[in-house]
Amino acid sequence: MRVIIDVMGGDRPEESVRGALRAAKEFGEVKVTAVGDKKLIERIVAEENASALGMDAVFTTEVISNDESPTMAIKQKKDSSMVRALTMLKEDADSIGMISTGSTGAVLTGATLHIGRLPGIYRPTLLTQAPAMNGQPVCIADGGANVDSRPEWLYQFAVIGSAYMKVVTGRENPSVALLSVGTEEHKGNELTRAAYALLRESNLNFVGNIEARDALSGKYDVIVCDGYDGNILIKSTEGAAKMIMSLLKGFVMESTKAKIGYLFMKKALMKLKNRMDFNNYGGAPFLGIKKCVIKAHGASKAGAVYNAVGQVLKIKQGNVIESIGRAFAGGAE
Amino acid sequence: MRVIIDVMGGDRPEESVRGALRAAKEFGEVKVTAVGDKKLIERIVAEENASALGMDAVFTTEVISNDESPTMAIKQKKDSSMVRALTMLKEDADSIGMISTGSTGAVLTGATLHIGRLPGIYRPTLLTQAPAMNGQPVCIADGGANVDSRPEWLYQFAVIGSAYMKVVTGRENPSVALLSVGTEEHKGNELTRAAYALLRESNLNFVGNIEARDALSGKYDVIVCDGYDGNILIKSTEGAAKMIMSLLKGFVMESTKAKIGYLFMKKALMKLKNRMDFNNYGGAPFLGIKKCVIKAHGASKAGAVYNAVGQVLKIKQGNVIESIGRAFAGGAE
Repeated sequence: MRVIIDVMGGDRPEESVRGALRAAKEFGEVKVTAVGDKKLIERIVAEENASALGMDAVFTTEVISNDESPTMAIKQKKDSSMVRALTMLKEDADSIGMISTGSTGAVLTGATLHIGRLPGIYRPTLLTQAPAMNGQPVCIADGGANVDSRPEWLYQFAVIGSAYMKVVTGRENPSVALLSVGTEEHKGNELTRAAYALLRESNLNFVGNIEARDALSGKYDVIVCDGYDGNILIKSTEGAAKMIMSLLKGFVMESTKAKIGYLFMKKALMKLKNRMDFNNYGGAPFLGIKKCVIKAHGASKAGAVYNAVGQVLKIKQGNVIESIGRAFAGGAE
Repeated sequence: MRVIIDVMGGDRPEESVRGALRAAKEFGEVKVTAVGDKKLIERIVAEENASALGMDAVFTTEVISNDESPTMAIKQKKDSSMVRALTMLKEDADSIGMISTGSTGAVLTGATLHIGRLPGIYRPTLLTQAPAMNGQPVCIADGGANVDSRPEWLYQFAVIGSAYMKVVTGRENPSVALLSVGTEEHKGNELTRAAYALLRESNLNFVGNIEARDALSGKYDVIVCDGYDGNILIKSTEGAAKMIMSLLKGFVMESTKAKIGYLFMKKALMKLKNRMDFNNYGGAPFLGIKKCVIKAHGASKAGAVYNAVGQVLKIKQGNVIESIGRAFAGGAE
């Protein structure tokens, strides 16, 4: 089994290479290929004194950045690390997944184009993992890949999210909640009301509507929503966390007494920061396509990239893609 | 000038009465009428030793709760504090506004039904004020009154929000941002892309798309969005704030050292809690109807209800409703 890592495109290519090296070393059952700039990869391999650690490399000359049009970039930059990594994932039967810290739009476009949807899938979905109150991961489906969703898409996001969270939580039938503006069945918009009806009739462990304030309580495994709303949920939470930490710092700086208190509380505050850090919850699997692609955070450090390799492995060992394929093999419902 | 307060329906009717008494006493230019249960109002008036303070009262026998269907409740409960307060607002030429801590759905339905939309307005909008980083209020338009909005509605929300924030901030042309999933013009869904085009052509101080993480930065006065998305933005932020404070408390309790630190930092933490408390930012004006109705938080204390009276006064003195009326008098565009 092989996992391919597009080490360019993110904010810290060096860290991606380090994560790839660590994964090659520590995951005995997986071979790792880093795809990216020759000089960069060779420099990090030398720095880490890791030449014999069994990581393969494919050297590329182009990088897809966050600023360019995803569709144009994927079509034109044939020698970009992202396109080469995706092509390799498609063509190599032994390769089970690809990880990229690059432009979300380009990863999703490229993955859909090069790897292709599973039969019966309307739209692949990005499963963003968010930090819950209790430290458990919550999965937002869709985390931002699809806007203007239709009710049947939301139903598929729920099935895909549930299949994934089964391997993450170990629970046979993870709980699925529908993001809405109130808990009653009739609350919501046209989309959520129609999706509610589909989910209610499904075999999923559907618990009904929830409000955004409860999405990260840890009581639910999968939060189903349109990608526009998933994006707002995730970004508001991130924004609030950042704002609160920064405000607290400001208020602390106003008094010597508070500064002393801050020193005493530092460990608790670091724990809090860690708990709220989306980066610690792994990359976002993009599922509903024929192989596993993981979009890791642009600022991912080596540990996050290493963890993403573990995610690919878990998805493989849990037969997540096979079970999604089976769910819709009879054609999209 | 008179302001009418529906003192029932919220979680703390006593506090609404106290707020009404305080407003009657302190706002010399405004008369205040409390509408609600006779026993309750008389008890609080006696407790506050306030019989001569010039607050009027209208006694009612019914209360609209959060659990009932807004439309049914408004139609059937003729002697509810909410319906009586709205009827009085409509019929009394001297009354400039009504405040309720009751069911949001019922307030909005009742206000639209009894007070009526201004000519040319598609949908009145709920302007939820949220806490920004810098302590300035930000106004979310729409804060949850309208789902499945059309682009023209969003344009009107922007005009209404801008007219209101003009009196709140004192700025001639408050900045208006469109909530989206990216800052580029093409980012968003069908609704936001169409609304973008309308806003770009307007006379508003339109600054373009913003992401949810920047909505409460304090850089923007009005955040325009569909009410479903406004609800998610507000509730995720509230939820994140609650989660963070509660997590911090838990981590602090794990160590004696941190507990000591907590004591030293208590003042800074209280400041933070206050800054993040939506309750401190006033009620949410429901504008686009012929008079001013303010939905105050269900848990409002006396101070919040008192502040809401100040808001009604500000809206009156700033001619907000007149200027909204003028903007669309030629018919909805």
